[in-house]
Amino acid sequence: MDDRELLYTIKGIIGEKNCQDDCAVLPVSPGNIVVSTDMLHKKTDFPEGITDWQIGWMSAAVTISDIAAMGVEPLWLFMAIGLDNQGRLSEIVRGANDCAKTFGMKYVGGDIDSHDELTIVSTGIGFIKEEEKPVKRTGATPDDIVCITGECGRAMRGLSGDKKYLKNLCEPNPRVFEGIKIRKAGATAMMDTSDGLSFSLYDIAEVSNVQIIIYPKSVPAADGTTFEEVMFGGGDFELLFTISKADEKLLSVPHTCIGIVKKGTGVYYGDEILQKKGYAHHW
Amino acid sequence: MDDRELLYTIKGIIGEKNCQDDCAVLPVSPGNIVVSTDMLHKKTDFPEGITDWQIGWMSAAVTISDIAAMGVEPLWLFMAIGLDNQGRLSEIVRGANDCAKTFGMKYVGGDIDSHDELTIVSTGIGFIKEEEKPVKRTGATPDDIVCITGECGRAMRGLSGDKKYLKNLCEPNPRVFEGIKIRKAGATAMMDTSDGLSFSLYDIAEVSNVQIIIYPKSVPAADGTTFEEVMFGGGDFELLFTISKADEKLLSVPHTCIGIVKKGTGVYYGDEILQKKGYAHHW
Repeated sequence: MDDRELLYTIKGIIGEKNCQDDCAVLPVSPGNIVVSTDMLHKKTDFPEGITDWQIGWMSAAVTISDIAAMGVEPLWLFMAIGLDNQGRLSEIVRGANDCAKTFGMKYVGGDIDSHDELTIVSTGIGFIKEEEKPVKRTGATPDDIVCITGECGRAMRGLSGDKKYLKNLCEPNPRVFEGIKIRKAGATAMMDTSDGLSFSLYDIAEVSNVQIIIYPKSVPAADGTTFEEVMFGGGDFELLFTISKADEKLLSVPHTCIGIVKKGTGVYYGDEILQKKGYAHHW
Repeated sequence: MDDRELLYTIKGIIGEKNCQDDCAVLPVSPGNIVVSTDMLHKKTDFPEGITDWQIGWMSAAVTISDIAAMGVEPLWLFMAIGLDNQGRLSEIVRGANDCAKTFGMKYVGGDIDSHDELTIVSTGIGFIKEEEKPVKRTGATPDDIVCITGECGRAMRGLSGDKKYLKNLCEPNPRVFEGIKIRKAGATAMMDTSDGLSFSLYDIAEVSNVQIIIYPKSVPAADGTTFEEVMFGGGDFELLFTISKADEKLLSVPHTCIGIVKKGTGVYYGDEILQKKGYAHHW
């Protein structure tokens, strides 16, 4: 079988019209599109035992989360799939399509390739109206408080073999609806914690030119997780954000305040410098 | 070194601001965005002897060509790069950035990953105003003539070892400016010939529900190429399009008329059915 024949598999799931041209044509009105692209592959991203449907879901979710982390509505999903085995395509596409639909998106195009190692690149496009602003990482301001949604360490605990968290690891739920509410509440900086909480704190502190101090023991740890998993474990898709105290009071999304923004540089856990580590690719 | 440190390499080429957030934020006005994504990797796409700069160029060019083939102006480029060796990043990014700039685009984001096999997914976004229409593959109409830009078979000849065509193979030039003019002249269907002329003819005939008849010996063959290379060789990025006779007379882009659209199905080379084959991925 070749990639042209395989396209029939995808047509049945995402529709004939989305497979006819090399490009998708998508209507926009005045505003900004918000675009993210992410590469995942077997060796570094797909844990042992993950199903093909979950691989599709996860590949879509990581990109959707990046859009959610700007407080923007995701609209369109593209999947470039490098398949080691043609039999896997249908379930992968189904998983990605289910994830897209769950978060209000349409799967509108992509590419199919043969590859020795299963490799997927998802690209997501969101849209935000002219009069509204996406939340960047750069806006954290001294005296803002530092907040996070949900609980930390679940995916890493799942990766360590705790079956209770396997679903968190393999079927992450991007915080799309929360992200939009957090933006509207006035968040000054935001990003997801996919590479681990420590890295995300450093990312915001560095590009915002501020210092962040985490209150010891304030970070919401998932049941049974270690400090290492909570602070440095990747694979969670919670939203980490900064916001003024006044705006935080009106925020209806469940969250925990874990620290404060100060003038200066670096990230501190109480009085100690927080280790800067987490999920990274190495050569 | 990890991917966070490698980001500094990219910052130096595409600018600091394009590396700060997980998403690019891009302004749009009323109209349509046109999006294409393409996966390339060492085993199936990068010929022996190609330089890293050329790999970057080619990876950008294939996606730009898909946008060009709808007659749309490409604006923004994203590159997800799965690197086997971190030392290659700088030249790959430079090549992609040079290609983007040449065709009026900005390289605005992407992802870096470690990968056993060099794998690149480029995503391109173009924009077209509300009152204008991208050219799809579906509009070919009986009595339209079938035309093509440039010459066929060059890239395949280069792949066969003919040094004269190595540059055509490794540094393809998407027909961006030609594509826009062809759209404005009134083309009814268009696509590039990256998978070979035969496949492209079949693609247009099938989704437009028409028959195409190619006039024998009319196809512009590059010097020294065989019939096989001209009709079935991949890697050329010429534009194949259909257009009414009246509109064709006013078209200022150099092109050759190679056939005619009829009612019916299939693609014929004179009286004979044309073999349907070309560049494809197999499992």
